[in-house]
Amino acid sequence: MSKSSISYSGVGRMAGRPVITDIMKVALENPEILSLAAGFTDTHSLPVSFVRDETVALCSSGGAPEYLQYGTTIGRPGLRRLVARRLSRADGHQNRSCHPDNVMITNGSQQALYLAMQVLCDPGDIILVENPSYFVFLELLKGLGIEPLGIPVDSDGRIDPDGFAVLLKRLRGENRLSRVKGVYLDSWYSNPSTRCLDNGVKEAIADVLKSVDLRVPILEDGAYRELYFRTPHSSSSIFALQAFDEFPRLFFGTFDKPFASGLKIGFVICDHAGLFRKMLNVKGHHDFGSSNYTQAIIQNALENGSFDRQLATVRSRYKEKMEILHGTMLEEGMRGHGWTWSKPDGGMYLWVRGPGNMDLGKDSLFFKSAVEEGVIYIPGDLCFASEGPTHYMRLSFGVLERKDLIRAGKRLVKVVKQFSGPLPV
Amino acid sequence: MSKSSISYSGVGRMAGRPVITDIMKVALENPEILSLAAGFTDTHSLPVSFVRDETVALCSSGGAPEYLQYGTTIGRPGLRRLVARRLSRADGHQNRSCHPDNVMITNGSQQALYLAMQVLCDPGDIILVENPSYFVFLELLKGLGIEPLGIPVDSDGRIDPDGFAVLLKRLRGENRLSRVKGVYLDSWYSNPSTRCLDNGVKEAIADVLKSVDLRVPILEDGAYRELYFRTPHSSSSIFALQAFDEFPRLFFGTFDKPFASGLKIGFVICDHAGLFRKMLNVKGHHDFGSSNYTQAIIQNALENGSFDRQLATVRSRYKEKMEILHGTMLEEGMRGHGWTWSKPDGGMYLWVRGPGNMDLGKDSLFFKSAVEEGVIYIPGDLCFASEGPTHYMRLSFGVLERKDLIRAGKRLVKVVKQFSGPLPV
Repeated sequence: MSKSSISYSGVGRMAGRPVITDIMKVALENPEILSLAAGFTDTHSLPVSFVRDETVALCSSGGAPEYLQYGTTIGRPGLRRLVARRLSRADGHQNRSCHPDNVMITNGSQQALYLAMQVLCDPGDIILVENPSYFVFLELLKGLGIEPLGIPVDSDGRIDPDGFAVLLKRLRGENRLSRVKGVYLDSWYSNPSTRCLDNGVKEAIADVLKSVDLRVPILEDGAYRELYFRTPHSSSSIFALQAFDEFPRLFFGTFDKPFASGLKIGFVICDHAGLFRKMLNVKGHHDFGSSNYTQAIIQNALENGSFDRQLATVRSRYKEKMEILHGTMLEEGMRGHGWTWSKPDGGMYLWVRGPGNMDLGKDSLFFKSAVEEGVIYIPGDLCFASEGPTHYMRLSFGVLERKDLIRAGKRLVKVVKQFSGPLPV
Repeated sequence: MSKSSISYSGVGRMAGRPVITDIMKVALENPEILSLAAGFTDTHSLPVSFVRDETVALCSSGGAPEYLQYGTTIGRPGLRRLVARRLSRADGHQNRSCHPDNVMITNGSQQALYLAMQVLCDPGDIILVENPSYFVFLELLKGLGIEPLGIPVDSDGRIDPDGFAVLLKRLRGENRLSRVKGVYLDSWYSNPSTRCLDNGVKEAIADVLKSVDLRVPILEDGAYRELYFRTPHSSSSIFALQAFDEFPRLFFGTFDKPFASGLKIGFVICDHAGLFRKMLNVKGHHDFGSSNYTQAIIQNALENGSFDRQLATVRSRYKEKMEILHGTMLEEGMRGHGWTWSKPDGGMYLWVRGPGNMDLGKDSLFFKSAVEEGVIYIPGDLCFASEGPTHYMRLSFGVLERKDLIRAGKRLVKVVKQFSGPLPV
């Protein structure tokens, strides 16, 4: 029985395979491979007993089990109150737009990003992103026909406000400035650059946008904000920076990485009522509300302190794992072969730069050799808005246990050494 | 601080408020109102102890708690196997396309419908629907700029294949046939008509579509298939009907209504590999996978029989509730005033037809009087693809408990009597 061919929509035609499919396929086909690729979370510290105890408490609380009933599209009021309060506290109570009515609970922060993009952008529109940026978001954009455009950086990879102003003026000259519909910032322990944006650079971004009258929505991703190793970063969210008062603001967060990624619950806070409402209405079409039950578990965990206890455990585990991988790469002499990276203060990645014009892409000889040696990574070129440099790699230390992290680090440096010229005298 | 105005996308501009917002608002503002409107599920039979026991078992099973880790976009393999097997069994093992690889787990069946529509339709495209149809799906279509077009029915409200053929030929004459991208059928205890489509009428639909060479995807919604009161309906799904072999087929299902709506897990089975893949890729952009944890609970419940035990409880509760509401309306003499409805064999609704040209719409005098009397319903005109008849109402008996169901029924008939002329001699 042959099926008729289907004439797909615009979105259907753009629905390409995820870029990392090939990379993940390699890992699945070769079980001995140690993966420093996927951004999975530390499995052994997942909050099994918290979740079990929360559930038992919830299910034994008596009364009508409303948490097993449909919830509302916007999400549980109690959870939204806690989210608003948490953001407010993180900003030292300097932000005035954190109200439960501005909060929507979503299927991970990913859904919130998707809703924002659906409501703001038509195919051919532009979203300004950092260079590099979160590759899953870049794929989301491409899936909707939206063009990510990188904000210029200096030779250290830091945002260059002057270069940014030049870019925007160029767009204006090309009559393309009106296609810019938003700016996406991954402000803390960014995936993949591992850097934090301080208030100064955020304010500089606001100034440049104002200078060309481009007061478009600012989408700030706080996915890793709470995953600092030792102390929180001193920066505020855009909600607490007066420089952004004239911009519609959105802050995205998740309970996945800090607590349990199997729950798939996140949120967005948005201080533009019209934009919030439209995103809410589209979410209504998507699913008319995220799982009420999962929200209830997280809400209880936040209320009774389990969430913060788990977070403290997660932080120390990621710090430890980072030290292990970082330390192994150092000890094996990777830096001596011209490879550089910063030791991060939080997050789940190392962002490593290879020497010169090295090609680390997924079709490169280096990548193939790494696979043969039994280790994989995310090629950095996938993290750039357009044709990006090929000499970066993203290493994720979140999943592997100590022994395997060391092994993986050693295998990686072995490949590095294969590709090195003679050491400098 | 005034915010800049935002220039929204096409989807953003179409993102209107849900039609039932006003109705729900009325209920929220008047707590004494008894709602026969929203399709919520029976709260007191929600599977609290099942969920608690499943969770304790899961969390005590030892080993790495993979169920609290990120899952895959397509969903847990074990759950997909169970879904495939369940559909196959429901079709008496007559269908050959039920394979776990054809199954995707989604955030309720709603997300699966949304993905299908995103991938198949551009704004201005047409989806053929029953008349009446599931109003939440009609809203989803409008949110994407897709036009729902009702398949003609006879005076009993049954699908009229000849009228359908005439409609399709007319579309062809208007050069609009190529805009038809799919057909949506709510085949069992339909929301709101409460009818089941038997194999004969489904095959007739296939014949008419083939007669104009319109072998477009058929989207069959099985949301209520397992919510029969006494015995399963004898019809097969389209997967088991040879008449549909040349059509891409999709079957949508959910664990929400049969088990617990707070979990928000559903699925789609699709036998067209290309379409499935595109839907999967877009889901990757939406959320890269539904909650792994919630899936694990449902998977366990299916495996160990808790799900079927809960389903048996739910069936008997809904049957009982239906009898109570139906019985009350009968005893109060509603039929004697020219109101008619069929007693359903399953599902969660009564589909009631008022006399003559009665207007039961949300702005009608009847609706206002019902609100004053303390009862609300879903106006039937919301359930039609285009300008629909205004003399229908949908009554949901799922939520209210016995006493309140009787009260609600009595209040409704009181309003009916206010609007009646003298009884026939």
